[in-house]
Amino acid sequence: MTTKHNRRSFIGTTAKGMAAAGLLTASSCAGTAKRLTPDLFIHHVFFWLKQPVTQEMRTKFEGELKKLVTVETIADYHLGVPAPTGRDVIDTTYSYSLLTIFRNKADQDIYQTHPTHLKFIEESQDLWEKVVVYDSVGF
Amino acid sequence: MTTKHNRRSFIGTTAKGMAAAGLLTASSCAGTAKRLTPDLFIHHVFFWLKQPVTQEMRTKFEGELKKLVTVETIADYHLGVPAPTGRDVIDTTYSYSLLTIFRNKADQDIYQTHPTHLKFIEESQDLWEKVVVYDSVGF
Repeated sequence: MTTKHNRRSFIGTTAKGMAAAGLLTASSCAGTAKRLTPDLFIHHVFFWLKQPVTQEMRTKFEGELKKLVTVETIADYHLGVPAPTGRDVIDTTYSYSLLTIFRNKADQDIYQTHPTHLKFIEESQDLWEKVVVYDSVGF
Repeated sequence: MTTKHNRRSFIGTTAKGMAAAGLLTASSCAGTAKRLTPDLFIHHVFFWLKQPVTQEMRTKFEGELKKLVTVETIADYHLGVPAPTGRDVIDTTYSYSLLTIFRNKADQDIYQTHPTHLKFIEESQDLWEKVVVYDSVGF
């Protein structure tokens, strides 16, 4: 944890220096630049909750997901539900999507055994009947 | 397209103004801040190429994927192959992963019928035997 925080602080300091020197272009701060690079590790999990899915189950599971994504090695994440689309190739049967992005496989390995992740499994596993995971690395 | 480019220019101009006014913090430019927000539309596609998958097929398909992700409404993307992980819940059988992130469903709708996307399908569909799509929106 200490190492991670130190690294973040270092980057922050560097960014401040770069900004002061005018080295950060507007586009790199504008929110329009693409940020996902091939070296990232994509970990996308789909959960099918047990039927019938009640609002109580949803509230509980959404709360647990929000606690889960506080794990420090998650570089970015998106918590979702099926979008309102429906072509034949689209699987809309899952209940929740957990997209997590890690800087590398090592960061994902830390996440897998992180106490917050283990607590998430302990608190939530009775709610789901199926989980499918896709892990991807760039080529 | 014109509208999109105008919007990007507008955001760029605004960012420049904010930077000049010192409103963009270092963390928002440092590359460590989380950027995926619930309003984004996640479109994740998994391709299973026809067996046996040859290097020639891979080279062709990877080239087509790289052309595909030039579609302007794709806010960010990651092109991947299965990571070296293998727990029971992980599906490692697919050949390629195409993770695309759109600002909203409307941007994804534009992508679906974009000439570059249609060309990708035309050029690549003979290579795959199965496609599975997961579309997600935040909650």
